[in-house]
Amino acid sequence: MSNSFGQLFRISTWGESHGGGVGVVIDGCPPCIPLSEDDIQHDLDRRRPGQSEIVTPRQESDTCEILSGVFEGQTLGTPIALLVRNKDQRPSSYTEMKDKYRPSHADFTYDTKYGTRAWHGGGRASARETIGRVAAASVAKKILAKLFPELEILAWVQSVKGIEATVDASTVTSETIESNIVRTGDPHAVGPMTDLIKEMRAAGNSVGGVVECVIRNAPTGLGNPVFDKLEASLAQAMLSIPATKGFEIGSGFAGTQLTGTEHNDPFYMEGDTVRTITNHSGGVQGGISNGENIGFRTAFKPTATIMTEQKTVSNKHEETALKGRGRHDACVLPRAVPIVEAMTALVLCDHALRHTAQCGSH
Amino acid sequence: MSNSFGQLFRISTWGESHGGGVGVVIDGCPPCIPLSEDDIQHDLDRRRPGQSEIVTPRQESDTCEILSGVFEGQTLGTPIALLVRNKDQRPSSYTEMKDKYRPSHADFTYDTKYGTRAWHGGGRASARETIGRVAAASVAKKILAKLFPELEILAWVQSVKGIEATVDASTVTSETIESNIVRTGDPHAVGPMTDLIKEMRAAGNSVGGVVECVIRNAPTGLGNPVFDKLEASLAQAMLSIPATKGFEIGSGFAGTQLTGTEHNDPFYMEGDTVRTITNHSGGVQGGISNGENIGFRTAFKPTATIMTEQKTVSNKHEETALKGRGRHDACVLPRAVPIVEAMTALVLCDHALRHTAQCGSH
Amino acid sequence: MSNSFGQLFRISTWGESHGGGVGVVIDGCPPCIPLSEDDIQHDLDRRRPGQSEIVTPRQESDTCEILSGVFEGQTLGTPIALLVRNKDQRPSSYTEMKDKYRPSHADFTYDTKYGTRAWHGGGRASARETIGRVAAASVAKKILAKLFPELEILAWVQSVKGIEATVDASTVTSETIESNIVRTGDPHAVGPMTDLIKEMRAAGNSVGGVVECVIRNAPTGLGNPVFDKLEASLAQAMLSIPATKGFEIGSGFAGTQLTGTEHNDPFYMEGDTVRTITNHSGGVQGGISNGENIGFRTAFKPTATIMTEQKTVSNKHEETALKGRGRHDACVLPRAVPIVEAMTALVLCDHALRHTAQCGSH
Amino acid sequence: MSNSFGQLFRISTWGESHGGGVGVVIDGCPPCIPLSEDDIQHDLDRRRPGQSEIVTPRQESDTCEILSGVFEGQTLGTPIALLVRNKDQRPSSYTEMKDKYRPSHADFTYDTKYGTRAWHGGGRASARETIGRVAAASVAKKILAKLFPELEILAWVQSVKGIEATVDASTVTSETIESNIVRTGDPHAVGPMTDLIKEMRAAGNSVGGVVECVIRNAPTGLGNPVFDKLEASLAQAMLSIPATKGFEIGSGFAGTQLTGTEHNDPFYMEGDTVRTITNHSGGVQGGISNGENIGFRTAFKPTATIMTEQKTVSNKHEETALKGRGRHDACVLPRAVPIVEAMTALVLCDHALRHTAQCGSH
Repeated sequence: MSNSFGQLFRISTWGESHGGGVGVVIDGCPPCIPLSEDDIQHDLDRRRPGQSEIVTPRQESDTCEILSGVFEGQTLGTPIALLVRNKDQRPSSYTEMKDKYRPSHADFTYDTKYGTRAWHGGGRASARETIGRVAAASVAKKILAKLFPELEILAWVQSVKGIEATVDASTVTSETIESNIVRTGDPHAVGPMTDLIKEMRAAGNSVGGVVECVIRNAPTGLGNPVFDKLEASLAQAMLSIPATKGFEIGSGFAGTQLTGTEHNDPFYMEGDTVRTITNHSGGVQGGISNGENIGFRTAFKPTATIMTEQKTVSNKHEETALKGRGRHDACVLPRAVPIVEAMTALVLCDHALRHTAQCGSH
Repeated sequence: MSNSFGQLFRISTWGESHGGGVGVVIDGCPPCIPLSEDDIQHDLDRRRPGQSEIVTPRQESDTCEILSGVFEGQTLGTPIALLVRNKDQRPSSYTEMKDKYRPSHADFTYDTKYGTRAWHGGGRASARETIGRVAAASVAKKILAKLFPELEILAWVQSVKGIEATVDASTVTSETIESNIVRTGDPHAVGPMTDLIKEMRAAGNSVGGVVECVIRNAPTGLGNPVFDKLEASLAQAMLSIPATKGFEIGSGFAGTQLTGTEHNDPFYMEGDTVRTITNHSGGVQGGISNGENIGFRTAFKPTATIMTEQKTVSNKHEETALKGRGRHDACVLPRAVPIVEAMTALVLCDHALRHTAQCGSH
Repeated sequence: MSNSFGQLFRISTWGESHGGGVGVVIDGCPPCIPLSEDDIQHDLDRRRPGQSEIVTPRQESDTCEILSGVFEGQTLGTPIALLVRNKDQRPSSYTEMKDKYRPSHADFTYDTKYGTRAWHGGGRASARETIGRVAAASVAKKILAKLFPELEILAWVQSVKGIEATVDASTVTSETIESNIVRTGDPHAVGPMTDLIKEMRAAGNSVGGVVECVIRNAPTGLGNPVFDKLEASLAQAMLSIPATKGFEIGSGFAGTQLTGTEHNDPFYMEGDTVRTITNHSGGVQGGISNGENIGFRTAFKPTATIMTEQKTVSNKHEETALKGRGRHDACVLPRAVPIVEAMTALVLCDHALRHTAQCGSH
Repeated sequence: MSNSFGQLFRISTWGESHGGGVGVVIDGCPPCIPLSEDDIQHDLDRRRPGQSEIVTPRQESDTCEILSGVFEGQTLGTPIALLVRNKDQRPSSYTEMKDKYRPSHADFTYDTKYGTRAWHGGGRASARETIGRVAAASVAKKILAKLFPELEILAWVQSVKGIEATVDASTVTSETIESNIVRTGDPHAVGPMTDLIKEMRAAGNSVGGVVECVIRNAPTGLGNPVFDKLEASLAQAMLSIPATKGFEIGSGFAGTQLTGTEHNDPFYMEGDTVRTITNHSGGVQGGISNGENIGFRTAFKPTATIMTEQKTVSNKHEETALKGRGRHDACVLPRAVPIVEAMTALVLCDHALRHTAQCGSH
């Protein structure tokens, strides 16, 4: 079903941006994994609004309650239900949206598909839906840490509009990325990116960019032939994040400019380990991880909600105009970074359990 | 499971490139859809090798047998099993691959994951696996034609290495695309693209590029919120095709260079129909089709098999060298076009049935 | 995953008997179905403890909160999350169970499988888990009522130990069943059944029996060939209810005493409708409903928790003895009736949506 | 989908009784399991028609071809496709069934659901469909033998109409069961059962009965709470076999005649092993195996096809009469025995892989 993700580590998110709250149920979690609300809260805090001057000022503590599946500090092996109440709701900001479709939002398509729509907020299309994913990924990361202690998942803002960061995916650290409010991996890009976002917000405009992610010290053997290739699962995962328009792994679109002799990654031995000299493959060959760094990029469009009047139509099919209201991010990228990491962790955890089931231990 | 695709129109492919054959089982097909082997053969013929001077000369008639699920020329509603025998097998071409891993192929990762590998060919990582997809998509297209008679799915080669085609996605025709062996939509690009592919083949090298696809006259309402957004399903589908490295929809990566005021697609009324002035969204908003053209691009890397000596390692973990043998495409793009169309049809058919189940008729 | 049920109307239950609460997430619900907490509460009240002198006195209001998926009194088409807080928890009653395995309970098997166990109550093996099912079935029944206004699902206590009710499945009414605390369909059996349950409770003992269920005015065409035959789905559904040991449909085990000439159900015409003279098939042929009453029976063992000392072992693998404590049903049957109806509604709703997806409207 | 079974060891069967053949695709099979066509043929031979004087004389060699997934005598970890051609087809026997619905068959319900039907045989409702299950179970048994070398799955005919066998489930052997054409575990019952079946056949009548199955030396920990309890999976599996009307595990329906003090299974220690004194639970508690013998019974109705004239209706909705033709079993039980064992093996194999995925090695 469309609100569930994963085959063995399976999450089901629920909740609208305005209403009783948002949450997630995790089924298939291995037992005896230490887990507390603090573990989850740490990750939620990276995602929540109101963290800095360049993101939405909506005030949500995003406090997480574990409703089930954990006993005496450990997972039980039964479903883990997590609940985050909505607090700072201002449906009044949305009164106009009751009748008018916001351009490049989900208002029109939800109305058309379902014949109804939670117009008092973004509904399921709101970024608040991703709270459940980030919370579930906290659990996934605990499992991954147990299976692969050296594994690292790091995402950062690679570009904001035309400003491109210079980042070495093999060495960039979490400290560098978290040290700046843009969450880029390039200290020199922080100033220009911050300035651009502030400028856009001041102009009632918005901006997009690219988030890059690297998985370091990945095990070999993750991913499955044909439809659940690791890159296919990652592509689905990334394109399921709101506002995404593209995904590429390894050499990506630029790789089409190379010839086969340039693009192929020759194997060599590093001690007992099979390695590749280059890594245009992005750590995945035939849909299965080869032990090299897994690197991929996700494109985010400029935020659809802008504080500028735009042409649109009403649900009565009359042409009209609409100017954005409410509290929104002029650039979603800083808050998208933990979401990209979360979806990556969910993909890896699910594939790790699937590998164990079919092929035994790692 | 990783060899199945779709939730309601569910296909399961099987088969290695060398062995008894390849095929597919389709479960969930609506009953009373007229279907013959000729319908399927027509699509398989577009995919099969040996069609022109720029693709692999492997001679396979790819003759399809319907084993079940069709009675008196109509589908029964029960599983449709389709079988294509392998004919022109030359395992001798693969003797060297028994021990040596081909760079940027699946040999090493399959061996590592499974502890075994069908070394006498590409196994499941071979492009022959896509026969089952193309055959199943023939059935999907029949269903789509019944539900949405105006719907068109058209893919073409948009670029080969640095050579970019100029194509108007709103008007390009199947006739134009099929009129040339490259399957590009731009008559002016045929010559340069053909020359480049021939040149690469002569040099024992290979080349990649981009396939673009448009869905015209798409209905509104296809796709589901959150994890099965239409673009997420398409992204998984495209990245499951061998040799793909990237996917983008609508404005894609280039859309990150625009601001929100430039990128948003204002709504207007065209008669009784809600339309958008621009279509940076690529026909999908909030994961659901909005009735505009759905346009996306998929990046294919240069073919991994090249007739040039490359460094590699053996399965005994000794460094060695390998030169490609066998019959291969120096450029997979012309044959990738029908595969992209096939995966697109499978995604649309599955989402159409899912929409019917939840929301009633279209 | 094992805590989800249904393919298109998919429910995922969560929660332990002691802890934050229990609940369910429903994915795939059609939009625009009127739904309120009162609708659900009505069904939960039939299932909850403390209803009469012959069931557990645990005091739980089982108040249901709709957290998502409903807006302005109608379903949105997005996930419906339902939460019931646990209130009357007495973990002190379970101190002894921390170390000792209750005979014929899930304590030992959970400990063995997971290496941990929510010993302060029945965990997921508690009957409280069924709250989520009953709540979800309230929604399923709304959908069924819309699709098939004449459809009726009625369950009743057919036997308690050796006391067998005499009930005409074609005419028994909800009023008759709900008019007595045993929930049997035979007014003459109420007294003996009630007396037996009270006697057993007074003796610190327990008793089981059979719940029968009939689906009247069922449509034809529900169910799918092979693994998801309607009776296979019902069998899984019934055997997933705690304390069940058997399932039979139509003639059931007794049907093995007949010959083919006696057992076959001859067809005849009743006006324009194809009917069968007898109904040994139980309303299902080849896994698909034929329009006759669908009748089946489920066996419930005597409640495992008894107030009598029994031999057992500890989790340290030492032999010991245990006497039940806490508040329990000496006979689960009266409260099992709404659970059987709930699981039946979930099966029918899921199969109805699946039929629509593949075969179109009913 | 309804033609697939299992979550991790997933089989998809296809094929009609008359047509190109029948088969199965297995996805998720662990790699490096030795497998040959002979392994599978041995099991198919037990199921196939024409084995003795009391089963259908249809002559089918049921020769199995492995089309994929096996290389150099071992499984590859990729899908295993198995094909059995139909040989001895006599569609002429079915001419009358084109228009007339056979009582207690699937003809009417298929026609009603799908608007079409493979009238030249039993279609998917034929027992030939079970060939795919038996073939897939051969593979499952190989995996189980590797994981649990002591595990035994044994089924036998426990009753034919009123003739009940006396069998000790703890000691009955495969040799005893296979030594007689009825496949009962009681040598004294062979004569009466055989005579009854012959008598019924001579009279153009048919007869049903009960198949009992025991799983000996089962591991603890198989099965999952709530919807995929081991008994729920077994119940679905058994009720998916054609002609079944009931399932019971452990004490079953008879257990409702006991009180809690009689029914509970006290624990004791046998060396280091936790055992139960009695086994009314049937080896499963809380949905999870406890290490005791798992015992269950499945009711099979008398064969629907009888050589006696019966009332029925045509597909034009006219009342008429029909007399069975073709070659059929007057009693399906002898051939049902290997099918019950096959479905049991499929359930156990799937749950074993699921246990490994979530909880690690056994």
